[in-house]
Amino acid sequence: MQISGHKSVKLEYGVLVEFIKNLPIFNSLSKDELARFVKEVSAVYVSKGSVIYIEQDKADYFYVIKNGWVKLFRETLDGTEAVIDVLTSAHIFAEDSIFNDEKYSSSAQAVEDATIIAVPVALLKSTIYENPAFATSMLAHMSDSRRKREMEIEHITAQNAAQRIGCFILRLCPLEIEKDIVVQLPYDKVLIASRLNMKPETFSRALNKLREKTSIKVVGSRVEIDDIGVLSDFSCSACSSAYPCGDLK
Amino acid sequence: MQISGHKSVKLEYGVLVEFIKNLPIFNSLSKDELARFVKEVSAVYVSKGSVIYIEQDKADYFYVIKNGWVKLFRETLDGTEAVIDVLTSAHIFAEDSIFNDEKYSSSAQAVEDATIIAVPVALLKSTIYENPAFATSMLAHMSDSRRKREMEIEHITAQNAAQRIGCFILRLCPLEIEKDIVVQLPYDKVLIASRLNMKPETFSRALNKLREKTSIKVVGSRVEIDDIGVLSDFSCSACSSAYPCGDLK
Repeated sequence: MQISGHKSVKLEYGVLVEFIKNLPIFNSLSKDELARFVKEVSAVYVSKGSVIYIEQDKADYFYVIKNGWVKLFRETLDGTEAVIDVLTSAHIFAEDSIFNDEKYSSSAQAVEDATIIAVPVALLKSTIYENPAFATSMLAHMSDSRRKREMEIEHITAQNAAQRIGCFILRLCPLEIEKDIVVQLPYDKVLIASRLNMKPETFSRALNKLREKTSIKVVGSRVEIDDIGVLSDFSCSACSSAYPCGDLK
Repeated sequence: MQISGHKSVKLEYGVLVEFIKNLPIFNSLSKDELARFVKEVSAVYVSKGSVIYIEQDKADYFYVIKNGWVKLFRETLDGTEAVIDVLTSAHIFAEDSIFNDEKYSSSAQAVEDATIIAVPVALLKSTIYENPAFATSMLAHMSDSRRKREMEIEHITAQNAAQRIGCFILRLCPLEIEKDIVVQLPYDKVLIASRLNMKPETFSRALNKLREKTSIKVVGSRVEIDDIGVLSDFSCSACSSAYPCGDLK
């Protein structure tokens, strides 16, 4: 099956079953339901830069990211782009279209080459109705997702730009190590700036300030952190959650 | 019943039934379920300034506002308050505690005298499980609420402070009139500034700019708008929704 002109990908049956059943949102599916999902979904390859759908398009599918990065965004009437989220493996998107007259509530674009799994919204709707444990999983997911947005509003209000970049980097760090960590920025700095709702020039200035205040080193996409405590003291003081926060997922 | 030391209020049975069954979120309750809700809820009076609960308190109840205004907020580790929402009649809050280990995910305070209806979270949980139409209503509510947060992130990103105050005022306006509108600000300007994630001094400057740009008059809490088109042209140009937007509720 072809979706909006993108290239369909053949995934091995076993790979698809394993991937779907291990997603928290789908772990309450019965064996029969899981089989039905696997039968009705299709994997699609979207190359970096391609648009997956446009806000207000009719929503026949919602999506699960197998790998790659996808940006959700809206355009204002005067043409500014507002980034809502940038998502990667195991995240779902467009699941809210079932409550939006089956239209997409934002636009979606691959910001790195991605493989995404298209799931019919009709199947989502019927399974919510038939399986209360699945409905509860969906509610828990939606509640988490709302909380994530609330944390972002809190961060925009309470943290300065350097602290917000620090918070973004902390989310990339493995939880079990505290010293001499090296992480890679997952996508380019212009997109990180948009994701953090900053202008690129604000981002550059704030990144310099963060380097000064916390001694982290950033060369290209490589970030070196000598001591996670210094970074978290700096960033998390202006947040309602201490590091490592429950929100780090 | 007494909740956290607040004064319980006796509402007439008929008034309570009418109020609950007319809330969109509860309109999928069966007759029996409705009767059970009415039996298990209790109305509580909270005076202006009183705290209803603190973040991380054990959540035995979620709430529906009968009248008045309630602020949801979190405090950062360095003591800054981040306002998440300010809600009024017919809005629900703390419903997400069922997915947060039955703890409140923020603090709540009455910002005007309020009567709120306390509903046991255990009842919410069991009804979600037993009634798929109710589960779907809850999901639709959560999805709307997430979208509202997304619009706020968009506004903080794309609108300037004066446009955001304009947007706040547009939401107070009746949809059917376009000229010579008078509305009252619902609560004091310091709280409106916090609600819009602005410092009070930014709010004052931005309100002056809004007056200049749109000729609205603001005296105390009274706002006079000669022409809604001028205000919406100014504010909505930097938003992805045209006026009147679906989000005006």
